[in-house]
Amino acid sequence: MAVYTEVSDAELASFIASYGLGELLSFKGIAEGVENTNYIVHTSTGPFILTIYEKRVEVSDLPFYLGLMEHLAENGVTCPTPVRNAEGENLSQLSGRPAALVTFLEGFWVRQPTAAHCGHVGRALAEMHRGGEGFAIRRANALGLNGWRPLYDKFAPDANGIVPDLAPLIEGELDYLEANWPRGLPEGVIHADLFPDNVFFIGDELSGLIDFYFACNDALAYDIAVCLNAWCFEKDGAFNITKGRALLRGYESVRPLTDAERTAMPTLARGAATRFLLTRAYDWLNTPKDALVSPKNPMEYVRKLRFHQGVSSIAEYGLGDSAQ
Amino acid sequence: MAVYTEVSDAELASFIASYGLGELLSFKGIAEGVENTNYIVHTSTGPFILTIYEKRVEVSDLPFYLGLMEHLAENGVTCPTPVRNAEGENLSQLSGRPAALVTFLEGFWVRQPTAAHCGHVGRALAEMHRGGEGFAIRRANALGLNGWRPLYDKFAPDANGIVPDLAPLIEGELDYLEANWPRGLPEGVIHADLFPDNVFFIGDELSGLIDFYFACNDALAYDIAVCLNAWCFEKDGAFNITKGRALLRGYESVRPLTDAERTAMPTLARGAATRFLLTRAYDWLNTPKDALVSPKNPMEYVRKLRFHQGVSSIAEYGLGDSAQ
Repeated sequence: MAVYTEVSDAELASFIASYGLGELLSFKGIAEGVENTNYIVHTSTGPFILTIYEKRVEVSDLPFYLGLMEHLAENGVTCPTPVRNAEGENLSQLSGRPAALVTFLEGFWVRQPTAAHCGHVGRALAEMHRGGEGFAIRRANALGLNGWRPLYDKFAPDANGIVPDLAPLIEGELDYLEANWPRGLPEGVIHADLFPDNVFFIGDELSGLIDFYFACNDALAYDIAVCLNAWCFEKDGAFNITKGRALLRGYESVRPLTDAERTAMPTLARGAATRFLLTRAYDWLNTPKDALVSPKNPMEYVRKLRFHQGVSSIAEYGLGDSAQ
Repeated sequence: MAVYTEVSDAELASFIASYGLGELLSFKGIAEGVENTNYIVHTSTGPFILTIYEKRVEVSDLPFYLGLMEHLAENGVTCPTPVRNAEGENLSQLSGRPAALVTFLEGFWVRQPTAAHCGHVGRALAEMHRGGEGFAIRRANALGLNGWRPLYDKFAPDANGIVPDLAPLIEGELDYLEANWPRGLPEGVIHADLFPDNVFFIGDELSGLIDFYFACNDALAYDIAVCLNAWCFEKDGAFNITKGRALLRGYESVRPLTDAERTAMPTLARGAATRFLLTRAYDWLNTPKDALVSPKNPMEYVRKLRFHQGVSSIAEYGLGDSAQ
């Protein structure tokens, strides 16, 4: 929620001119995006989003993110689509920072998702997994299994200061996940962060997916596990099995799960909860008190992790009978 | 540069529906406006700006501001124009705060104005003065002559802590202005804050005026004096007479000044410099160190005031010969 890089009208006009999108009509910094600076740009041919990449984004990853959005759009997935400039580049420079122009995606994220929304999200996730097939660039999941223990080690001595007994909870869970993590599941490009604020709707219809800046190659079913965590719990901490069922059935309407994926789901969900618990705990301890953006409370993911620890089968997430 | 009031999708959808502007397609908080929360709203009939009025705005003044924008638009002045809802109201409520929807004005403000821009601004200011004729609601200028000494009294003991000898400079100037303020000049609705960030251009053409939240009834020529201060000084503090000439001639191309207005211009310019010096000095002392928006340095207006103190005729602002 900030504009880190201020651009001048002359710089921006010349930047926009390089895209051949007509005359620059207006640009306004938008209060979204913690990591980057975003402007809504109107030209005589339509609205666009200009993103200026700030220091938290690895420049070497930008060809993956931008290339993926183009690849997905070409394969029928609705998402902001990079525009190429006169030199044929989808990545350029503005005010000395890497910058890209993407199409404006109409829609807005849903603050209180219903089971119907969850069904749409499951379907869109599977369509994204299909749409990502054949994408040539690869990116490892820096926040996958191998990244969790090193991240925990950074704040382990302070963990119990956040929540009593957080250290033994995380340490026991990392031991479990390292010993039981499923291998050999179908892999592909995953979104890895498909929370409600990254899915746009217009009315009851899903209008597209945004924010591919955690996308990477990993087990496809892990992406479903992230969504079960992000979409299917109520504010009071209870898992809503109606939403879980809708999400899983929505997914399977496009891409049925393998038996191995179904069996692995409780472990994948534990891993996904651990991943967000770890980053939230780290941010909780390391965000300056005067920062513009308050860190999210890690407690929410402690509760989710404990729920998944008690789950023994995908039926408890709502997918009881594959023939249904 | 902030979003103070977060609205939910359901609230906003129902708010937008009350205007009959088609379906809500998207809304994004914009990082503009220190005093209010602003969203860009796209509906199926076009883009709009939604403003939620925060506590610094007097609710009782809103009918003046919104009515003025409607009146000006009806009289050919291009500015954001309030939309009326199904009840015929241009002022409504959202998330418990007063809120209004206005048309989206394309264009963007010019960071480095040229003399040509100053000419357009002068012309647009005069057109606004003409367009404001006949507007029925009145609003006194809270930051006019009668408001300056009470504002100074709030920080007088600390004034010299900002700039050495600021207290005697302001006190002497207030004595001068109270004794010499011109009376009986043509009055009307003035913008009172027509700085570069409140004037939009597309290419070299002025596309409209925004931000009427200081507008009030006062001497029309005082509005020109504000613009001379805001548009015609260079970053090094020098007055640019070419820009002054362009601004004054632009103004006179629509509404020629009276002899009394010409004679009064140096005193009006001193008053305008004092007004912005006072508010900047007050904000300099009273803005919390951790505020999102840094206060503007009052020193700029000390220099401008000293310049005007040495001016004896409107010729020194560029209007040497009325026959030119």
